Amino acid sequence: MRQHKLALCKEHYLEWIPEQTERFINKYEMFHRGEKILVAVSGGKDSLSLWDILVRLGYQADGLYIGLGIEEGIGYSSESQRLCEKFASERGLRLHVVDVAKEYGQPIPVMAEVSHRGQGRPCAVCGLAKRHIMNRIARDLGYDVLATGHNLDDEAAVLFGNTLQWSGSFLLRQSPVLRESPGLARKVKPLCRFYEREMAAYALLRGIEYIYEECPFAEGSNSIYYKELLNRLETDKPGSKLIFYLRFLDARESGLFAPAPETQVTLHPCPNCGQPTSTDDLCSFCRMIATVNSKMEKEN
Amino acid sequence: MRQHKLALCKEHYLEWIPEQTERFINKYEMFHRGEKILVAVSGGKDSLSLWDILVRLGYQADGLYIGLGIEEGIGYSSESQRLCEKFASERGLRLHVVDVAKEYGQPIPVMAEVSHRGQGRPCAVCGLAKRHIMNRIARDLGYDVLATGHNLDDEAAVLFGNTLQWSGSFLLRQSPVLRESPGLARKVKPLCRFYEREMAAYALLRGIEYIYEECPFAEGSNSIYYKELLNRLETDKPGSKLIFYLRFLDARESGLFAPAPETQVTLHPCPNCGQPTSTDDLCSFCRMIATVNSKMEKEN
Repeated sequence: MRQHKLALCKEHYLEWIPEQTERFINKYEMFHRGEKILVAVSGGKDSLSLWDILVRLGYQADGLYIGLGIEEGIGYSSESQRLCEKFASERGLRLHVVDVAKEYGQPIPVMAEVSHRGQGRPCAVCGLAKRHIMNRIARDLGYDVLATGHNLDDEAAVLFGNTLQWSGSFLLRQSPVLRESPGLARKVKPLCRFYEREMAAYALLRGIEYIYEECPFAEGSNSIYYKELLNRLETDKPGSKLIFYLRFLDARESGLFAPAPETQVTLHPCPNCGQPTSTDDLCSFCRMIATVNSKMEKEN
Repeated sequence: MRQHKLALCKEHYLEWIPEQTERFINKYEMFHRGEKILVAVSGGKDSLSLWDILVRLGYQADGLYIGLGIEEGIGYSSESQRLCEKFASERGLRLHVVDVAKEYGQPIPVMAEVSHRGQGRPCAVCGLAKRHIMNRIARDLGYDVLATGHNLDDEAAVLFGNTLQWSGSFLLRQSPVLRESPGLARKVKPLCRFYEREMAAYALLRGIEYIYEECPFAEGSNSIYYKELLNRLETDKPGSKLIFYLRFLDARESGLFAPAPETQVTLHPCPNCGQPTSTDDLCSFCRMIATVNSKMEKEN
């Protein structure tokens, strides 16, 4: 690991990653051992490794798998669900499974097509659905905190995209921990300081079976483009990805940005699902589901 | 010009660039026609075009050429001086020439080597000397404002480097116009919204003879590296360089950043040159010159 000037053998590497994770959990005050954690798992290396690490560290962590119904000829969702279930059952862990099509009527790609959101790519609908469902399960089942497997490459790419546009509100919000607010669970990213390749090495050395494929809809996305650009930068100037992300957190912490303007937005509970929304009516998710269902009915 | 969705013939292009420059001068309140402008010219396309444009627009603009003594086998400084003098004499314009070696004892490459500033690259010493001399000439000869030929590619690259490091103080300072303060001339960059290739096209179509070579010491510098990275981004996502720079200016204007903390730094006039410095003693430039001269004396 050039950026840390550190070389470890397998045994020590498998100790080092959880130790570092524990440091980040404490540093950013993510959660403590008395709290119940819900880990959102996708079947990929990051989220399954996160679950593994949290359990090894002695935290009470259950899993949540959301079946998006993205098959696209390669059985992407079925395979990732199988791997999550295998991971949980081999370790005697509890996994909640939410199947989007069964619970809400249609799989994500159909929802995206019918609702015409997101210019030919289901990512906007998928993100909306995942945020809604993760928060719903965390609240309904009494979890204190929702943990996701975002790594440094993910976070740096999001930061890079928002910085290229100087999107103030996004810059102010991006954080390893988002505190809970009425109706919204606390959200944490314990792996946000690990390079993607560090997590791949952990999953491999730990023998975690995970899905290698990216989501078939990710190809050509902005986030993949920014990741590639940052990888080139990292190759030419090792450590720059970590510096970019950490100095951003430091600069914000030490007051580089002005406090966000006091918004007069009052959040209401959505009359259908009860999650907070800024509109007077249904939240975006319930509105999207209502549109999709009414269009599907008309077609039939 | 893809980013403007505009295609112009030669005649209109040669009108469009000065019109746009005038717009930027007014928009950022750089200067007005009653003021005396000193244009720092290097012999390159940007600064000579800037001088050409300002004179065409009816501003009172004289030139300043600083002879850095960078020959390095290709006669870089002599050739750029020749081109500046040719430009001025053909148009009957007034050019001030300051020769660093004649006035301060040594050319820039020797100063850099002897003073051990800047890790093998004379750029730090060169920047220090240029800032000092430009400010000296502007003040001593009664100019109201100092104009440099920085284009969008220059500004975006500097911004990019500072953003990758989240260098707060540099982010807060980078601007198309820096107001005057006691002992420091106002500084403006009227070309900051033009792409480098737009300025190259202007110089070419206008028939301005300029030096094609970059400074031989620029090779391998961070600023060139960042320019290349931004060029790749621009090729893949046209307009992103301009968006990056302009949204930054907008975001700062609309209060994204907290005001710079009140610094208790009092500036004193340097006992040797009179320019403001934060130390109680000689300013950095005079200190550097003193070091170089004393080391050279010891050697002889």
